[in-house]
Amino acid sequence: MNILIVHAHPEPKSFTAALKNAAVDTLTTAGHTVEVSDLYALNFNAVASAGDFDSRQNPDYLVYALEQRNGVKDDTLSKDILTEIDKVRSCDLLLLTFPIFWFSVPAILKGWIDRVFVSGAFYGGRRIYDHGGMTGKKALVCATLGGRPHMVSEGGIHGDLVAMLRPLLQGTLGYVGFDVLEPFFGYHIPYLDDAERHGILNEWYQALATLDSRSLLPMPSLRNYDETLALRRIVLA
Amino acid sequence: MNILIVHAHPEPKSFTAALKNAAVDTLTTAGHTVEVSDLYALNFNAVASAGDFDSRQNPDYLVYALEQRNGVKDDTLSKDILTEIDKVRSCDLLLLTFPIFWFSVPAILKGWIDRVFVSGAFYGGRRIYDHGGMTGKKALVCATLGGRPHMVSEGGIHGDLVAMLRPLLQGTLGYVGFDVLEPFFGYHIPYLDDAERHGILNEWYQALATLDSRSLLPMPSLRNYDETLALRRIVLA
Repeated sequence: MNILIVHAHPEPKSFTAALKNAAVDTLTTAGHTVEVSDLYALNFNAVASAGDFDSRQNPDYLVYALEQRNGVKDDTLSKDILTEIDKVRSCDLLLLTFPIFWFSVPAILKGWIDRVFVSGAFYGGRRIYDHGGMTGKKALVCATLGGRPHMVSEGGIHGDLVAMLRPLLQGTLGYVGFDVLEPFFGYHIPYLDDAERHGILNEWYQALATLDSRSLLPMPSLRNYDETLALRRIVLA
Repeated sequence: MNILIVHAHPEPKSFTAALKNAAVDTLTTAGHTVEVSDLYALNFNAVASAGDFDSRQNPDYLVYALEQRNGVKDDTLSKDILTEIDKVRSCDLLLLTFPIFWFSVPAILKGWIDRVFVSGAFYGGRRIYDHGGMTGKKALVCATLGGRPHMVSEGGIHGDLVAMLRPLLQGTLGYVGFDVLEPFFGYHIPYLDDAERHGILNEWYQALATLDSRSLLPMPSLRNYDETLALRRIVLA
């Protein structure tokens, strides 16, 4: 497989970086081709703006998704975006490694999504979910957090973590067509000792060795929705 | 009331900006003091990094939340963050106006949250929800999207929009103690004609005129959770 790891952590020596490095080593050793976009190291521009287009269909009024569509068609997207799009297009598995900030991705990774998941290539109209531009590819989230499992479980104070990450897991990765693997979480990281962190690394090595059999998250299928994306009525024969 | 509007849209002439301007005019006319942080106009730095601290407790290894706590205590946060913290501290109502990108906020607004909602002043340990740093203040989200209501409703293809925005509404605003008002949504915006957009503006004026009676979203209360934030067992007498 071609694997793209998109990594977003402000500390190069972080435990999250150790999880990213473990993935690079393990997956390379297993014979895969691994590429890494380390967003902090790249100083990646996080902010979607008019500057993302070398020329625009409408220079007077920016509709960002519309200019993305034109940019893909006319090859006028800025170079840093094109580079990342090419990496995603070439990959079979997209792996995101990041610390959870506010039950979501760090802004630099949100900006990578806002700017790289362009209308036209990744989605458009009814080209979403099982008709999305990235169908046939897999995506896996590996995220760290300070919280403990009981705080982010169904019935816990913050609610279920997979449900909290649904804007990313379903609304972004699933939306553009990825098969989304069950995410991997490292809990309570700032408070763990070395032995406990090694325990999490071992779980991660185990997960990496068994990607083929990892569960997929359920996603909507377009065949259940009509041309307005309303749920089809079931007609019993 | 003192009202802080944090606005994040890359097009100054956008309909979202019209909603923001309507809020500035209406709330000022009603006698409130209104301040606006227009994040694109400010060219706000979206990326949390080591550069956010004039000096650090640990210069060799960045734990971002820990340095935030020290930064608040020792007054070593960077100037742009301090300015925004002061604005939030001074406000009675925080209003966020933005277009929904990927079922979430644009990266520039995520970066404002990542950098400004600092550990120590906004939250810390069990100082969350009804014990959070921002208790006594209200927050309101005014967001625009391309989707139509049936796509983002319970049972719709993407699921309920308020549930999708839970990382922001509960996991961020509620978490730090705001009373979170029922959000205001402008649907299907890029596809509407002028009359339909005026209809949404009128709904928004109506919402602004009746903020006092607007519903609050339910949030967890700390009294239901023990010192480890586990749900207390109910003991029947």
